[in-house]
Amino acid sequence: MVSPSQLMENQVFMAFASYTTIVLSKMMFMSTATAFYRLTRKVFANPEDCAGFGKGENAKKYLRTDDRVERVRRAHLNDLENIVPFLGIGLLYSLSGPDLSTAILHFRLFVGARIYHTIAYLTPLPQPNRALAFFIGYGVTFSMAYRLLKSSLYL
Amino acid sequence: MVSPSQLMENQVFMAFASYTTIVLSKMMFMSTATAFYRLTRKVFANPEDCAGFGKGENAKKYLRTDDRVERVRRAHLNDLENIVPFLGIGLLYSLSGPDLSTAILHFRLFVGARIYHTIAYLTPLPQPNRALAFFIGYGVTFSMAYRLLKSSLYL
Amino acid sequence: MVSPSQLMENQVFMAFASYTTIVLSKMMFMSTATAFYRLTRKVFANPEDCAGFGKGENAKKYLRTDDRVERVRRAHLNDLENIVPFLGIGLLYSLSGPDLSTAILHFRLFVGARIYHTIAYLTPLPQPNRALAFFIGYGVTFSMAYRLLKSSLYL
Repeated sequence: MVSPSQLMENQVFMAFASYTTIVLSKMMFMSTATAFYRLTRKVFANPEDCAGFGKGENAKKYLRTDDRVERVRRAHLNDLENIVPFLGIGLLYSLSGPDLSTAILHFRLFVGARIYHTIAYLTPLPQPNRALAFFIGYGVTFSMAYRLLKSSLYL
Repeated sequence: MVSPSQLMENQVFMAFASYTTIVLSKMMFMSTATAFYRLTRKVFANPEDCAGFGKGENAKKYLRTDDRVERVRRAHLNDLENIVPFLGIGLLYSLSGPDLSTAILHFRLFVGARIYHTIAYLTPLPQPNRALAFFIGYGVTFSMAYRLLKSSLYL
Repeated sequence: MVSPSQLMENQVFMAFASYTTIVLSKMMFMSTATAFYRLTRKVFANPEDCAGFGKGENAKKYLRTDDRVERVRRAHLNDLENIVPFLGIGLLYSLSGPDLSTAILHFRLFVGARIYHTIAYLTPLPQPNRALAFFIGYGVTFSMAYRLLKSSLYL
């Protein structure tokens, strides 16, 4: 019998696991950032969330949108839109037997670009900082998709 | 040759597969809940969706937002934001050879917390029901991420 | 030692890898479609994005929403909501040792339905084109979930 834990003896797969865990943890941090801004700025989307701040009409004034909260939410959604393809394509790429140093270069660039994207979005830094970070992550994922389809296309 | 189906002989991996399938099916149910509220309340986002309810100006009145529909959509997005990290981190955690009972405890807590989160969001139940459900799922994912990085960090 | 690349010797898994890479690449194309419409129609969500089009009050007029941009964003979010379950359930289904031709039929239907969904959403085609495309993809994912739970439920 083959134990799945033997997958973890493969260096490319271990590297993928480590970088993926880091970038997903970073994405989860966006949830706490949203919660932080919602609580400190008293900006809520649901009536039950601000029930503790007052009754009736008094509580309704907290049901609004706020630039800062919307910014964090856009950054979070952009993370989702880009990390999901990395997760799927990266996993299959890792299993397709790529060169270790090439694979690690891809993972490092992607994770670095996404962390920089978050910093550029939340600070906010002037463009094209955020656009550049976005396109590096995008390019890395496409590069993995290209190598994957080239080495093992089966339709 | 190693058959991937042998992965399925591993109990942790089989448990991960079962719980993940359940929680993803639950997330897909949110799409039908949105469609249900859109149709019963006649609330649409696209002109072509309400073409059957009238012509021209008569149809445009259905292009609006509705508290109930927005609530389901927020619950769906929160699912996406939390189930994607569980999917990625949980898969890698399952392959890292964890203790069976510890792994199953993680999966059960996560799936239970997400189902309770949906109930708390859609009823809606007063806070901190939803916040608690959110943080249990969040904590379970971080616990798996921590064990994964501790056992097999490779940067 | 077992190399993970041996997974790629399995035909079902290779087919899953190919179709998933295609559907995820299609989803990533939605980001460029959004960027294209934002730039050609000068519709932005962040002040720093339209700083190049003017200073102060002159730039603020570009911070607005646009039907075309919102339509692409809804199509993108719908992709995320449906491709994430396909990614998770499809991966586990591929590893559960299904019949090759059945598996490929599932993958082809899903990828075809999602491409048609995007065409129907962005053109836009009259309903029920988009609804049909949505439900085919939805049904394929549930069919895989059902077979997966039937063959290897472990709770």
